[in-house]
Amino acid sequence: MIKKINVSIIGASGYSGEELIRLMLRHPSININCITSRKYAGQQIRNVFPRFAEVDMLFSKPDVEEISKSSDVVFLALPHGLASEYAIPLLKNNLKIFDLSADFRIADSAMYEKYYKVPHPAPELLKNAVYGSPERSKDEIRSASLIACPGCYPTSAVLPLVPLLKNGLVDLSASITINSLSGVSGAGRKVALPFIFPECNESVKAYAVTGHRHIPEIEQELSKAGKKSLKVRFIPHLIPVNRGIQTTIAVTAAKNISEKNIFDALSLEYENEPFVRILPLGKTADTKDVTYTNFCEISCAYDTHTETIILNSAIDNLTKGAAGQAIQSMNIAFGFKETAGLL
Amino acid sequence: MIKKINVSIIGASGYSGEELIRLMLRHPSININCITSRKYAGQQIRNVFPRFAEVDMLFSKPDVEEISKSSDVVFLALPHGLASEYAIPLLKNNLKIFDLSADFRIADSAMYEKYYKVPHPAPELLKNAVYGSPERSKDEIRSASLIACPGCYPTSAVLPLVPLLKNGLVDLSASITINSLSGVSGAGRKVALPFIFPECNESVKAYAVTGHRHIPEIEQELSKAGKKSLKVRFIPHLIPVNRGIQTTIAVTAAKNISEKNIFDALSLEYENEPFVRILPLGKTADTKDVTYTNFCEISCAYDTHTETIILNSAIDNLTKGAAGQAIQSMNIAFGFKETAGLL
Amino acid sequence: MIKKINVSIIGASGYSGEELIRLMLRHPSININCITSRKYAGQQIRNVFPRFAEVDMLFSKPDVEEISKSSDVVFLALPHGLASEYAIPLLKNNLKIFDLSADFRIADSAMYEKYYKVPHPAPELLKNAVYGSPERSKDEIRSASLIACPGCYPTSAVLPLVPLLKNGLVDLSASITINSLSGVSGAGRKVALPFIFPECNESVKAYAVTGHRHIPEIEQELSKAGKKSLKVRFIPHLIPVNRGIQTTIAVTAAKNISEKNIFDALSLEYENEPFVRILPLGKTADTKDVTYTNFCEISCAYDTHTETIILNSAIDNLTKGAAGQAIQSMNIAFGFKETAGLL
Amino acid sequence: MIKKINVSIIGASGYSGEELIRLMLRHPSININCITSRKYAGQQIRNVFPRFAEVDMLFSKPDVEEISKSSDVVFLALPHGLASEYAIPLLKNNLKIFDLSADFRIADSAMYEKYYKVPHPAPELLKNAVYGSPERSKDEIRSASLIACPGCYPTSAVLPLVPLLKNGLVDLSASITINSLSGVSGAGRKVALPFIFPECNESVKAYAVTGHRHIPEIEQELSKAGKKSLKVRFIPHLIPVNRGIQTTIAVTAAKNISEKNIFDALSLEYENEPFVRILPLGKTADTKDVTYTNFCEISCAYDTHTETIILNSAIDNLTKGAAGQAIQSMNIAFGFKETAGLL
Repeated sequence: MIKKINVSIIGASGYSGEELIRLMLRHPSININCITSRKYAGQQIRNVFPRFAEVDMLFSKPDVEEISKSSDVVFLALPHGLASEYAIPLLKNNLKIFDLSADFRIADSAMYEKYYKVPHPAPELLKNAVYGSPERSKDEIRSASLIACPGCYPTSAVLPLVPLLKNGLVDLSASITINSLSGVSGAGRKVALPFIFPECNESVKAYAVTGHRHIPEIEQELSKAGKKSLKVRFIPHLIPVNRGIQTTIAVTAAKNISEKNIFDALSLEYENEPFVRILPLGKTADTKDVTYTNFCEISCAYDTHTETIILNSAIDNLTKGAAGQAIQSMNIAFGFKETAGLL
Repeated sequence: MIKKINVSIIGASGYSGEELIRLMLRHPSININCITSRKYAGQQIRNVFPRFAEVDMLFSKPDVEEISKSSDVVFLALPHGLASEYAIPLLKNNLKIFDLSADFRIADSAMYEKYYKVPHPAPELLKNAVYGSPERSKDEIRSASLIACPGCYPTSAVLPLVPLLKNGLVDLSASITINSLSGVSGAGRKVALPFIFPECNESVKAYAVTGHRHIPEIEQELSKAGKKSLKVRFIPHLIPVNRGIQTTIAVTAAKNISEKNIFDALSLEYENEPFVRILPLGKTADTKDVTYTNFCEISCAYDTHTETIILNSAIDNLTKGAAGQAIQSMNIAFGFKETAGLL
Repeated sequence: MIKKINVSIIGASGYSGEELIRLMLRHPSININCITSRKYAGQQIRNVFPRFAEVDMLFSKPDVEEISKSSDVVFLALPHGLASEYAIPLLKNNLKIFDLSADFRIADSAMYEKYYKVPHPAPELLKNAVYGSPERSKDEIRSASLIACPGCYPTSAVLPLVPLLKNGLVDLSASITINSLSGVSGAGRKVALPFIFPECNESVKAYAVTGHRHIPEIEQELSKAGKKSLKVRFIPHLIPVNRGIQTTIAVTAAKNISEKNIFDALSLEYENEPFVRILPLGKTADTKDVTYTNFCEISCAYDTHTETIILNSAIDNLTKGAAGQAIQSMNIAFGFKETAGLL
Repeated sequence: MIKKINVSIIGASGYSGEELIRLMLRHPSININCITSRKYAGQQIRNVFPRFAEVDMLFSKPDVEEISKSSDVVFLALPHGLASEYAIPLLKNNLKIFDLSADFRIADSAMYEKYYKVPHPAPELLKNAVYGSPERSKDEIRSASLIACPGCYPTSAVLPLVPLLKNGLVDLSASITINSLSGVSGAGRKVALPFIFPECNESVKAYAVTGHRHIPEIEQELSKAGKKSLKVRFIPHLIPVNRGIQTTIAVTAAKNISEKNIFDALSLEYENEPFVRILPLGKTADTKDVTYTNFCEISCAYDTHTETIILNSAIDNLTKGAAGQAIQSMNIAFGFKETAGLL
């Protein structure tokens, strides 16, 4: 008999919520207990997400007490600023929380406030929270009660850079340039003029070229790995695909390194990680090879002409970039196989 | 009575050739004299390009003597390496040539051979050739007999950077990072597995991340503007749109500059240029606003966090990036209005 | 000196309005006098439609008196139900009106009310209105003061069928089945969940499979041509392209006809029409060959297996399906070349 | 311990082959024994299909003797005309065969020859073959040794029509009109000019509007259900999506039927079928709700205006339209749960 845990999802009417449902429905050890949406409360899930036509389950209003009684773990898929309303009482009731918002990713609340331009909703919870990168924080994920799941862009930028920073392969006195290309689902299920089909299709553009909210998260994680306060240039772009982020990183190489050093550092770091895929030299990461999966694909090259390390990564923004990575962390936390429900 | 010139296009069966035909058909001063294609010789243009259903004209085999008798000017739209077979006799016959290939763009034939990995087909012609940037070389375009029309990626990278380099706004000791995103027509009308629809659609990837053939051309032009030998990191990507290149450039700013300095340098440089559009601060260049036009749209920002100048440009790779820019140069050379047939 | 007329566009903030502006800007005989939008009044056109970056013109509030003084002709690009507010006073002031809405297309106001489910806003104007098909009503377009421009789907369905009906090639006792596939711009610049990119992309579906509002318009025009009251099955579909309608029509052939009869009837009907393109037998109409043009492309086949005539047509929904066809009618009405500004 | 069967796939280098591999890798009861491709023999699967990066398995040359020894069942994913070369010896060796080609779908070899324009490669095998529709032929699938898996278009057309024909809801004296819209993967992994991205993207067209090869298959199955020899008009279209077929069917209703009769017939027929989904009245089938699944989604409407039954269906052409349906049949044949590996 397979052990099952009871899971609730709060705020499940967006694309991350849909992806959580998709993945949990096929997870062998999850019993979905409750799916909430203020907007769609009382409606069948399948009315909102017709792919789940065979599922007979209603969206409910979020009710902390009921969820606390019935659930072992709660996933929060809410916009930033709203998670603490649920996190605070649920933590009191001893539930384990996986928060997909930005609210508990940044340890320094001042930095959060600088980039998000709102007061931090619950700075007192930050000490309980861990940044839940399944590849780098397995122990913390197991022990913490509040796991801040990484953002989509940061996942695609941090995983390729960490091994190089840890191994001293990057010249930290030079710039770190990160260009990311995201599919439109990355904007959420947002109904706004820039996201209607004729405005996105046959269009490619950068946006938020300075000051994007994911910068402090990327810098925090890279600074840990580089053991030095690091800054990054981060330039996101909107691309006419549904799903997928492709990130291209250019950093100046440290002296006397080779392409093999780079490849080896990446390969060694992730050799036991089930969801990080290092491509052979000469290949480049392609979103179409990872969409609808929890993989992060990484390719690397060394440009001798300018002594530059070039890294490319590809993830599905909704899977490895959100729901899949959160479930991967949950698998770690509950002692399931790390890949359970994700292959 | 409008003065008309007789024009031939050699090698017109690809997308650049199609775009040359499209633009020339509506040009008030062009009489298309001859359109050649070895592959389709004897066939109606409209059989190959059904958009031209109303045009009654055959592809012919390229015949230098006949073209020389009937034409004033010849556009070569051939793959690199093949242009000189026609350029040499046509120049002897005193025709003016606009070459859309790479063969005469790079003044240093050794550099050409390094990147193209073939002997230069006609190094003796290089002294006659000018790099035909309509914004920067009007006089040379008028006087030269062989105009090398700029490549698509270089156009999108050079136009934004030149004014900043000329005005000393860039720290030339730091890296120049250029990420370009190109629509699939940039690969030509090439029938190969990576370019079939299911392989490109819902896919985003970088390719040729080191050593791309457009690097020497970009470096040559930037070095002229910066009055210093400059190197660039150039990373092209393939994006699922038909047309358009979006280029994102990150360079370290010189000391004590402001966003206004950047914007002013761009605006001043191009204030009289009909096809360069500097966007207001806060906007970013979008390919959908320039496709099917000859415009290059440029936006800029100054990232105080990392002291980085961020430039974004958008062009249509087949128009400003190839056929349109060539016709713009022809307009200059023949004393037509620079915008004739291009608005 | 080219004669120019003064034109105003009322309600120009949607895609049809944008297309009217695009086409009028290059029309040799049009002076755009006034472009109105309640929503964007006071804003630069280029802020709303960045493709028009070089145009220095503001959206204004619609002011009938001012428009009457300054304009010769007015294009109404408003949702159905709203046109008469302007049409009534403008007609009194002797302006010629081209209405792109559905309000004056259907001669029978009861039929309008049945399908649009609102009272007809101005039934008294119907007697002044003509259905402005440039291919079939040139004289009426010249003489009428109120021209109802055909809808996008009806244009694609009526043009192929009319010649066959007129020539008795269709068995009118059998069904007329019309399947249309439309790009998303056909829904207008509408900000609603079904039209955001991730909902439309990689998706194909029918909608409004019974009772679509274009049915009475199609039936009215086919009944005229067939000299008999005809009914149609009309099934529209939404397809992930920006622009273009492809319509497939299946009708039972009259006895003893051949494929040549069909082809000849189409060719003869439209031999002098500049914007109807009959494809050779064996080819099928493709939207990509007509987008951004005013052409209607028609192909035909005769299926001996089921004695069916199969017609395929392709138009650009915003050009031949809306703005382009309206300007074509204006060209006819004002004695300009029918193709002026449209090639 | 789960019982596993040994499976070989012959001819697995196309998109149907890729989909077979994708589905079999996650099937709990399948051990993939051998994957053949003449073209890629000796290469890693992952080199050809990078999504399978974690799979360590080589394409091999097809070797009937070896496959016969090691396998219980063989899937043939070959172009039509080639299946019998393997089917004949494998059947002799008592293997069960699921053939995804057209070769054994049509019981009448003369009809095959008429539409495929080649002699039938093995008419003597036709008596052993069953048309393997999992919804309609469970017993035959269990007992037969050679299962001809249905084509993609026929699946989307036959499933909606069968219940109406069986229940006498269709006026069989009138035409049956079937319009199908297919994603580009339906053309296979074919490298040809019409299928490169810039030719397919932003394009919609019909093709093979008469005489498509799937007609005899559709007619054979409908005739069985209607107990009468039936003919259909079948018009396929190419649509710029990767995966999915949307089929729209218009048939004249029998006298005195209601929308409820139609809905009930569909619902009743498929109430125990795990992969047929009847949508509530008022909804229409959308490919995006079934891509990457084995579902066939069906919606219906009754158009009182023309007494027409309108049926819409959506499938993934590679899953329910090919590989998924084949595995569903295999599940039935081997006594696995019908949904094993497919949910």
